Amino acid sequence: MATMKQFEPASGTRDFLAAELEQRERAFATIRTVFGRYGFQPLQTPAFERLDVLTGKYGDEGDKLIFKILRRGEHEATGEADLALRYDLTVPLARAAAAYGSQLPSPYKRYAIAPVWRADRPGKGRFREFVQCDLDIVGSSSPLSDAEVVLALHDALEALGVPEFRFLINSRQALFGLLEAYGVPEELGSGALITLDKLDKLAPEAVVSELVTSRGLSEKVAQGLVDDLTAEDSVERVRGELKASETGQAGLVEVDRLLELTKDSIAPARIGFTPNLVRGLDYYTGIIFEVVAPGMPGSIASGGRYDGLIGRLGGKDSPACGGSLGIERILPLIRDAEADRYAQIDVAVTVMGDEQAADSFRLAAEIRRAGVRTGVYLGSSGKFARQMKWVSDQGARFCVIYGAAEREAGSVTLRDMDSGEQVQIPFDQAAAELSRRCAAPSS
Amino acid sequence: MATMKQFEPASGTRDFLAAELEQRERAFATIRTVFGRYGFQPLQTPAFERLDVLTGKYGDEGDKLIFKILRRGEHEATGEADLALRYDLTVPLARAAAAYGSQLPSPYKRYAIAPVWRADRPGKGRFREFVQCDLDIVGSSSPLSDAEVVLALHDALEALGVPEFRFLINSRQALFGLLEAYGVPEELGSGALITLDKLDKLAPEAVVSELVTSRGLSEKVAQGLVDDLTAEDSVERVRGELKASETGQAGLVEVDRLLELTKDSIAPARIGFTPNLVRGLDYYTGIIFEVVAPGMPGSIASGGRYDGLIGRLGGKDSPACGGSLGIERILPLIRDAEADRYAQIDVAVTVMGDEQAADSFRLAAEIRRAGVRTGVYLGSSGKFARQMKWVSDQGARFCVIYGAAEREAGSVTLRDMDSGEQVQIPFDQAAAELSRRCAAPSS
Repeated sequence: MATMKQFEPASGTRDFLAAELEQRERAFATIRTVFGRYGFQPLQTPAFERLDVLTGKYGDEGDKLIFKILRRGEHEATGEADLALRYDLTVPLARAAAAYGSQLPSPYKRYAIAPVWRADRPGKGRFREFVQCDLDIVGSSSPLSDAEVVLALHDALEALGVPEFRFLINSRQALFGLLEAYGVPEELGSGALITLDKLDKLAPEAVVSELVTSRGLSEKVAQGLVDDLTAEDSVERVRGELKASETGQAGLVEVDRLLELTKDSIAPARIGFTPNLVRGLDYYTGIIFEVVAPGMPGSIASGGRYDGLIGRLGGKDSPACGGSLGIERILPLIRDAEADRYAQIDVAVTVMGDEQAADSFRLAAEIRRAGVRTGVYLGSSGKFARQMKWVSDQGARFCVIYGAAEREAGSVTLRDMDSGEQVQIPFDQAAAELSRRCAAPSS
Repeated sequence: MATMKQFEPASGTRDFLAAELEQRERAFATIRTVFGRYGFQPLQTPAFERLDVLTGKYGDEGDKLIFKILRRGEHEATGEADLALRYDLTVPLARAAAAYGSQLPSPYKRYAIAPVWRADRPGKGRFREFVQCDLDIVGSSSPLSDAEVVLALHDALEALGVPEFRFLINSRQALFGLLEAYGVPEELGSGALITLDKLDKLAPEAVVSELVTSRGLSEKVAQGLVDDLTAEDSVERVRGELKASETGQAGLVEVDRLLELTKDSIAPARIGFTPNLVRGLDYYTGIIFEVVAPGMPGSIASGGRYDGLIGRLGGKDSPACGGSLGIERILPLIRDAEADRYAQIDVAVTVMGDEQAADSFRLAAEIRRAGVRTGVYLGSSGKFARQMKWVSDQGARFCVIYGAAEREAGSVTLRDMDSGEQVQIPFDQAAAELSRRCAAPSS
């Protein structure tokens, strides 16, 4: 195993061989089609940015996970870094929006499906190189934009064939309104929300206790909040509480507007107001959402409105909203039969002896010109059994046998690899015949 | 300008906005289709490798251009690197071939279209992040493999629409045979070839002089070689000289076999034996080739047989051959009208007033469900002229106007943006009508 280790990809990264890679690419293509239908544009930024573009944008914990690139040339010996691999797709978006503002449509609706790199401790399902799939609308404060982001993600999940999922919808304003209704002082609000975000992981008592000891809330308020957010009828309860707060009312209007705008496209079971959805990140300013799916802990997509962020990240201050598909977590949910039926070629052409090689090769070229994926045996063995094993390993649907006898007769033997059936056809009709057969669906 | 600089991508890298990115992606998709037709499989390896996988593989000059990544965590302060961005796609291929040997078909025909990173001095057309496009066959010494590589590249260039190009074919054996025929001692051979490789840049006299002073050849031999390789009838001359050398004869057989195997697919004007094609890299062992195109200095594709390289790079010793499309140099040759006609959406839906917003949004969703790329106005202006400017900026073919009057009448106004023609159609027939119109080709 020691000898194998040296050939493995670097820790936390993966090689993708053809079958898995093509499955991933099919999924990405599906997403691109859906996003394109909404008029989102692709943006591609470089793998690395100047170090100062990235540092200080992700908090202390995030900064530690940035992969830094050593200065080159005479400066190498200093051990200093001047570049860094992108950590996400949002900071590059902010930079590009600032750089190309006048060339971009307004609002700018962009998507990006691209790898990012984080020096996280690698683990099951946690990688140092992984693909993010983001879409964002920069420059619009319209509630239609929030609805478009949700709809585009919904349509993508549906097009990908994720069997079951549900959008959990809330609003930062509704959350702050709830705290206001309970008389929580404004300065304690953000801290209280960070603790309330743990309701999906910790027992309610633990959350109450943390709200009291770490966040400075009274026992009664903490218990009331947790009761409201964990009750079976929490939606009704919270709607009631929010009547007491103007901010809360505005939050409810946001949520209801979103539900109204999406109701014709998203089945009721797939979306709903979720008062205890908090989202840890404090840059959200309006609608927030997560998508959950049975069998997958955590969320498979998420997003929201973040009106101040683009400006904070270095761009022009703009309203913005967006969302992200957790594509690495979604792919295992849609693993389908197509990957198992993976075949590299449709037609395999054997090469029986040097005399026939050039003819076999010419025939393959003709079949390819008809658009059919065709392989020629490139090994050195003239043995029939060996070549037929190759044909079968390649997953080809048809095999062309062209030996001395066929050459003499001016024909080829065509074998259907599913049925085993063989027919003789004239050499110069073989390409057309195979093209015809390959256009028909596999039996 | 100082403020703009900070938003530019890092030196030597590029951002790609939608129109250019989609043009690049279309080209890559074309190449993938062609390579797939030959049964080549895609392979994707990570952006970075362990440093020791890459160092010592590219020579001293190459090693200096490797982007190294700082160790993270407690080791960061050491200024040491443990990872590095890939410098090419060949070393990762050798590592993957070693890692997955038994899972891979034999021979292993793989392609990769992916960015690589080099800390080169950025300049016109020279980038620090650029895409390589490689295809290789590992594990076959058959001349059919060399021919397949050449044919697949040829078909890709043709499918990309490169208007004119020519394959220059030679063989390392033919080159060594020529030196042998002139009595050049074996140990001087490689050096002499490096100098002869400069015939396309230096004057013949300069090459003769370097052969004599730096490579140790006699004046007569140097002059004879240069005369042969620069003569108008160099093909005939060299064919004649090679009769004197067994190695040279073997090289000619290689070249002629390749020309024979490709003659039905490649027009004679697009391929030919080119005795003065040398290729600087000394790892080539058999056929070598370059593709040249009018209007583009240097080559737009190149490759050859390199039987010892996979083993030297850490893989199992295997015969191999391959080639590479210089995609960054090819793209400017095929810049076509499609990029100029770039439009993000086909249908633009205006939003005239809050009362109509939800209906407009619902209509857009319906049009999208019919597969049509549709945008809704997400700005805050209710002004008609402002919204029509947006429609026109988006490059939409059709615009849907739905104001208070249309709402009253239960209809929408549909404007053809090319002709300016407007029609009223019932609201609930608008999606079907637009889907029908968008399926028709643009006028």
